[in-house]
Amino acid sequence: MNETKPTVLYHRADATKTRSDILRVAADIASAEGLEGISIGRLASEMNMSKTGIFAHFGSKEQLQLATIETAKQIFVEQVVQSALQKPRGVPRLMTMLENWLRYVDRIVFRGGCFFAAASAEFDSRPGVVRDQIAELTRSWLVALQEEIAVAVLNKELTRSIEPAQLAFELHAYVQEANWAFKLFNDESAFARARRAIRNRLASASLKRPPKKGQ
Amino acid sequence: MNETKPTVLYHRADATKTRSDILRVAADIASAEGLEGISIGRLASEMNMSKTGIFAHFGSKEQLQLATIETAKQIFVEQVVQSALQKPRGVPRLMTMLENWLRYVDRIVFRGGCFFAAASAEFDSRPGVVRDQIAELTRSWLVALQEEIAVAVLNKELTRSIEPAQLAFELHAYVQEANWAFKLFNDESAFARARRAIRNRLASASLKRPPKKGQ
Repeated sequence: MNETKPTVLYHRADATKTRSDILRVAADIASAEGLEGISIGRLASEMNMSKTGIFAHFGSKEQLQLATIETAKQIFVEQVVQSALQKPRGVPRLMTMLENWLRYVDRIVFRGGCFFAAASAEFDSRPGVVRDQIAELTRSWLVALQEEIAVAVLNKELTRSIEPAQLAFELHAYVQEANWAFKLFNDESAFARARRAIRNRLASASLKRPPKKGQ
Repeated sequence: MNETKPTVLYHRADATKTRSDILRVAADIASAEGLEGISIGRLASEMNMSKTGIFAHFGSKEQLQLATIETAKQIFVEQVVQSALQKPRGVPRLMTMLENWLRYVDRIVFRGGCFFAAASAEFDSRPGVVRDQIAELTRSWLVALQEEIAVAVLNKELTRSIEPAQLAFELHAYVQEANWAFKLFNDESAFARARRAIRNRLASASLKRPPKKGQ
């Protein structure tokens, strides 16, 4: 059968595999040292490839950065978003989104913590397509949380007085804070703090479970 | 009188002024482009000085980074901490600390937003003295918030069931989230969201003002 192997397609599949291997390493480096830290030279050395070999896959540093962001997005979708989509809409899905996000930081999927937290801190003052892409993806996650809160209000799981954008801001803040404290202080208890903050905030916003005084 | 001017002291004062001017520019660059972005060459070009001139003041990139962090700390103390120390301890001082911190981000004291938020995101994965210094200063601010909460509990301004470290985590998270959203989305409304979150959280933790349902 080997004689009939479609060589061109085989090479193409091979190249796709190499490209995706390079991007996985690039996303890891970027999460820890920044998207500006992923040079063609650095990747060539980490992957034991020639610079020309790496360059052939991307062409420019900006293309490499954008492809790295796309890879990080796919990983985030797989690890954080997909299983949440199996949950009923409203509070159950919202809780799963937040819990999956916390676990993805805790499991150190990227060596530098949440890829998008790192990338947005790095690029927020650098106008251009890379920054725009980071902002768009990050915003879409914030909006997804907000929409789930809106559904929870419609379902009467949360009180009518809840403004979805405000509650999304607060819940998003707890997870980002946990990522920040875990990375800077190596403090695992930050995850418990974020979980407690989320639980109490949702309880106080809930119709069914009024908050305990002072919690 | 000019003949009697103490030349050596004069030069020393001049050098101190130059050093502090260099560091103010360095802190600005670092807040936007990272502490790794403040090279001797870059500063020489922004300050219209020779590289040798800059180098004479610091000696190494690490020394320059540490001196920049020290400058940023002094600015933070002046703009955020000092006026809060005039307030009575407990909730009034805590509120002023948080409000000053929000205003310092909103006023764009550093062109890249909160210097320490940027520096901690950049250095959290880079072990060494620079990272240690950033972590220590950042932690001392978090602890200061926590101590003020503990005083507020002792003063019975907040309920006994409040755990200071937990509440400090949540309040700190709201301001960091505002800094993040303002920088990434250029979204001024993030400050109003943070203020509302702080106000509601303190109201729900307060003995005197029970939270409105769902707020």
